[in-house]
Amino acid sequence: MIERPFACIVQKPTGIPDRYDNHIERRLSSMTGQFRDHQAYEKLVQQSDRVIYEVYEGRRVDDQRELAHGVSIVKPGKVGDEFFMTKGHFHAVLETAELYYCIQGEGMIVMENPEGDWAAERMSAGVVLYVPPRWAHRSVNTHPHDELVVLFAYRGDAGHDYQSIERRGFRKLVVAAGERTEIVDNPRWIPLHQPA
Amino acid sequence: MIERPFACIVQKPTGIPDRYDNHIERRLSSMTGQFRDHQAYEKLVQQSDRVIYEVYEGRRVDDQRELAHGVSIVKPGKVGDEFFMTKGHFHAVLETAELYYCIQGEGMIVMENPEGDWAAERMSAGVVLYVPPRWAHRSVNTHPHDELVVLFAYRGDAGHDYQSIERRGFRKLVVAAGERTEIVDNPRWIPLHQPA
Repeated sequence: MIERPFACIVQKPTGIPDRYDNHIERRLSSMTGQFRDHQAYEKLVQQSDRVIYEVYEGRRVDDQRELAHGVSIVKPGKVGDEFFMTKGHFHAVLETAELYYCIQGEGMIVMENPEGDWAAERMSAGVVLYVPPRWAHRSVNTHPHDELVVLFAYRGDAGHDYQSIERRGFRKLVVAAGERTEIVDNPRWIPLHQPA
Repeated sequence: MIERPFACIVQKPTGIPDRYDNHIERRLSSMTGQFRDHQAYEKLVQQSDRVIYEVYEGRRVDDQRELAHGVSIVKPGKVGDEFFMTKGHFHAVLETAELYYCIQGEGMIVMENPEGDWAAERMSAGVVLYVPPRWAHRSVNTHPHDELVVLFAYRGDAGHDYQSIERRGFRKLVVAAGERTEIVDNPRWIPLHQPA
């Protein structure tokens, strides 16, 4: 169990906390099969396998008395017409919630539950989003050049199930349609009640 | 269990969410015995029993799969030389953590555990504070005229134990010493291992 309080400050304008315990960088190459336009994806990975999002985690103890927390930063950019996004995941302990607070930037959180219900909420500075137990969640940066910076908190023992999304995809994707942002069906989505 | 995601936006400059489920207002008269200067306290309550803090809660389900969350707003002001503050509490399920994110304002979170260890962290926009399981917590607004606006999250079933603090007080108080803020001993604090 964590014994003493601790604090950090999310620095402006980077969104990077001045103290953290763990730093995760996800490159484009770790997102195989997730973006709709495979050709554009392969080409971009070849050109430059850049970091598309980062996570700065506070001290985390795998214990239901604690809260896992940190800041995620999704970079601006697109693969074809599809915005950069996080892998997205269910919690390993499926029935645990997550809370988001958008610090800066513009984007969307796309969510779905194992029954195939989906939801999407717009993020901008000041938005608090409640992701109920059982809902997978993915952050999407829809801004042309700003980073999407989001604070997150969830039960310390919740863990991550990335595999379900890697295999089956999200039901909905977020793409640019000129100046607008559209939520479209993922042609490769496999419902959870079908074998992957 | 909560079935669908939901979002709100913490509005600027008020700090009030545009949607919430529960609004709590605490007046000065609900803080009997907590401020060091009893005479100044009684006089201020007589003059005007004003709201010294408010809490806007999101939908809350008393369930360890959920996260209780919301925004607290502590008003600027003093009782004698002691800054306006929240009642402060342990969680009823003592061994549960809390996460704070300071949206705006300036202040301090004062904390203590049942063993009498104490801690205080300064709050200003962008500060993330982890309150570990077992630590009581109180928000103090140290700014002369701005409100202290803080987002909070904790396990849905954690609940509140206000009584321990009402009876025994916090070990430390936060007072103004000219332009500075000082953390001083509470002369009326009763350690938890002594009968109240």
